[in-house]
Amino acid sequence: MQVKILDTTLRDGEQTPGVSLTPEEKLRIALRLDDLGVDIIEAGSAITSEGEREALKKIVKEGLNAEICSFARALQVDIDEALKCDVDSIHLVVPTSELHIKDKLQKPPGEVKEKAIDSIEYAKDHGLIVEFSAEDATRSNMQFLKEILEESISAGADRICACDTVGILTPERAYEFYGELSKLKAPLSVHCHNDFGLAVANSLMGLRAGASEVHATINGIGERAGNAALEEIVVALYSLYDVKTNINTKMLYETSKMVARLTGVYIQPNKAIVGENAFAHESGIHVDGILKKAETYEPITPELVGRKRRFVMGKHIGSSALKEKLEEFDFKVDEKQFKQIFERVKNLGDMGKCVTDVDLQAIAEDVLGIVEDKMVNLEEVTVVSGNKLTPTASVKLRINEKEILEAGVGVGPVDAAIVAIKKSLEDFADIKLEEYHVDAITGGTDALIDVIIKLRYKDKIISARSTQPDIIMASVEAFISGVNRLLANEKKKKT
Amino acid sequence: MQVKILDTTLRDGEQTPGVSLTPEEKLRIALRLDDLGVDIIEAGSAITSEGEREALKKIVKEGLNAEICSFARALQVDIDEALKCDVDSIHLVVPTSELHIKDKLQKPPGEVKEKAIDSIEYAKDHGLIVEFSAEDATRSNMQFLKEILEESISAGADRICACDTVGILTPERAYEFYGELSKLKAPLSVHCHNDFGLAVANSLMGLRAGASEVHATINGIGERAGNAALEEIVVALYSLYDVKTNINTKMLYETSKMVARLTGVYIQPNKAIVGENAFAHESGIHVDGILKKAETYEPITPELVGRKRRFVMGKHIGSSALKEKLEEFDFKVDEKQFKQIFERVKNLGDMGKCVTDVDLQAIAEDVLGIVEDKMVNLEEVTVVSGNKLTPTASVKLRINEKEILEAGVGVGPVDAAIVAIKKSLEDFADIKLEEYHVDAITGGTDALIDVIIKLRYKDKIISARSTQPDIIMASVEAFISGVNRLLANEKKKKT
Repeated sequence: MQVKILDTTLRDGEQTPGVSLTPEEKLRIALRLDDLGVDIIEAGSAITSEGEREALKKIVKEGLNAEICSFARALQVDIDEALKCDVDSIHLVVPTSELHIKDKLQKPPGEVKEKAIDSIEYAKDHGLIVEFSAEDATRSNMQFLKEILEESISAGADRICACDTVGILTPERAYEFYGELSKLKAPLSVHCHNDFGLAVANSLMGLRAGASEVHATINGIGERAGNAALEEIVVALYSLYDVKTNINTKMLYETSKMVARLTGVYIQPNKAIVGENAFAHESGIHVDGILKKAETYEPITPELVGRKRRFVMGKHIGSSALKEKLEEFDFKVDEKQFKQIFERVKNLGDMGKCVTDVDLQAIAEDVLGIVEDKMVNLEEVTVVSGNKLTPTASVKLRINEKEILEAGVGVGPVDAAIVAIKKSLEDFADIKLEEYHVDAITGGTDALIDVIIKLRYKDKIISARSTQPDIIMASVEAFISGVNRLLANEKKKKT
Repeated sequence: MQVKILDTTLRDGEQTPGVSLTPEEKLRIALRLDDLGVDIIEAGSAITSEGEREALKKIVKEGLNAEICSFARALQVDIDEALKCDVDSIHLVVPTSELHIKDKLQKPPGEVKEKAIDSIEYAKDHGLIVEFSAEDATRSNMQFLKEILEESISAGADRICACDTVGILTPERAYEFYGELSKLKAPLSVHCHNDFGLAVANSLMGLRAGASEVHATINGIGERAGNAALEEIVVALYSLYDVKTNINTKMLYETSKMVARLTGVYIQPNKAIVGENAFAHESGIHVDGILKKAETYEPITPELVGRKRRFVMGKHIGSSALKEKLEEFDFKVDEKQFKQIFERVKNLGDMGKCVTDVDLQAIAEDVLGIVEDKMVNLEEVTVVSGNKLTPTASVKLRINEKEILEAGVGVGPVDAAIVAIKKSLEDFADIKLEEYHVDAITGGTDALIDVIIKLRYKDKIISARSTQPDIIMASVEAFISGVNRLLANEKKKKT
């Protein structure tokens, strides 16, 4: 069995409140979706705006493998705008529930049906593929719903779709509902919303019941609680149902990251498949299991979706994970020392902290009595910024007992400080800032700011952190402590 | 029918990689969970650390309505530590799958079973309520699973639980699996993980099949992709299944916010029930429907879960929403002017921007030819910060043609600048900074930073935004543009 995927990240997904994409951004996402293997790209709604039409035209011009589709209401003007963009198909959406027809459209049901049929015929006459969708289908009178879908098929609709517009289906009702509609004589699509967190489950049940196509968005973005998440549906179909799609699962993670970046809708760490933590492990029991056999706590390999496994240290750490980490940093410890280190990592956790590589190494060195001379010491840093001057920083570092004084400018005060520090280090080591992350700051301007960075020196990458209310000082201190760790490791290797 | 809720935010939830709570934080969450109406609070695992035991003891001391439970393995030391904390019950977890027994525990199944039974008897002898859980139950041999559960009941287990440890159940398999186990002679709990995005659906199916208790966490936090989300289960039970719980749904939103803040695990805007967008609407069709009758695009009222509806402006805006917003700001526009404003809001959307209140008002005033003198003009701002000095800012503002020069210090450079600006305004208007939000910054130190603030003046609240690579300038400009809007509205009212 094989299921078709209609991706509506660029239509339902872009309707996420607060999200707007430029035509160029829409094009970039469409190219990625095509590479990913999506069958149909619902790329927007031509009637929406000038920019939207520009985006549709750009995407159509690329001649992608995917069918390019525009959303349309049962209005000639909507279809005409879609035709001007030269799309392959329209997703023609008509409300079928009494609530939507009476309270929203404020028209008699007969007129709505007539308009729908006219629109299908008009679109077919103009050479479009038509996927005909019943909006709010799950709150519609079943007899009216079937009638309008049957008439749409007679009028030439190529595919039919029933939308669970406000996400009220449950798995068992989804199975029954889509099962009933799959008896009609056209391929059936499932379109589910996530208001109760059930969009993915309901979509899978619809497919099990006989639908052959599913509507989904990357990261499950969309109006309100969003649509069914493409990555979850595809991986569940593959792993739990042995059902094929044309999706290259190895591209799911990078696609998710791209959509998050361009839409600004960041996903939570505990999001299935693509969340930062989906393949991260901290607790002792879990890490121990994973190290013995990954399947104990991983239902799929991270590589299946283009990812890597990650271990995190904190108060739930177990001895297996800690041993692994200490070995990685070349610490040889006896049992007593190990116990001490273990306790101190747990204590740091009890204080509400996660434990970075730099924290662990500081603890281990302290326990082992290694007095590591810090190679780089911050003597002084001063930053000025404002509307009438270029953000400028001066730093005085003591590096290997040599005093280095440097200045730098940047696009902002943090950037200026980091530029100055990097300049100071130039003669000693080529340190690269691989990642700079500040958690969302919410509250007042005096909130604590948590800066976590990743630095690279040659082939070694290290994470470091600093938490302070001053974003400049937090960034500078995280950077310098990371540099010291990287260079200390280097020295150890040499001796 | 009524379902019991075991909340494991403080155990499974705290095992989220990177999350650590202090004993005080755990206590605060426990108090809130008790208010919320949770039946059982699994508050931690006594064996984990000194801080964990301190937290358990603090929580027990409060004498809450909820049963207070500690996680334990089938080891006497785990149970002893739980007993020292004086908890009501233990959640005793024993692996039952061949994979976990052979590859993780590396013991014969008979020995595992024996240990389990011994532990139950030991715990019961010491007066504990015992919920006996089979870990990785869904990948276990059904006969062995039933045997161990039956023997656990004979040994005195008060409740039994079967864990879908790596989230591999599907709704139909969950129904079958929990249905089978619900025939055993003890109350059955459902415990589902979210690796495929199905934790909530599977939990609901388990309850439908006869289980009487469900394990869940606030916001669905937990190892990897997390556990079943409490708020989704409770609201689905209430709205879709007409099944009662003891949860006060009106407290769900504030509880979610509190857990997000204390754990640092922020949820995505499109999270069901508690995400920022769950009751937000942007697209024209949706807003139009909502204004005519909320049920068209809302399956439940926002008030049910302690929230309010929110309209967002952007490129998908429709005329109903725009009219509503313009009225709110007291703009009287004719049809031609309305069209112009509509177009310009859409254009801003096409440029990839969301549209704040300040943006809309600037557009409307421009179209209406209102030349609004800005009351507050930023002439100069200079900020210095560093490791050897107190973050200090000077600002020169022109307010009503009067030049005001002020300086301020703060905990960081942004704080210093805002303090100085507030001081300058003191004689003119008492402006309160209600919210300060910076999106997570990821990438380099030269990334664009989006600052969104909410300001209050008397009973009027306004949102404003600025996007720049310099966090100080972005904060200052958002603040001043917000102030100007608030004071302009004031002037309009007076004239």
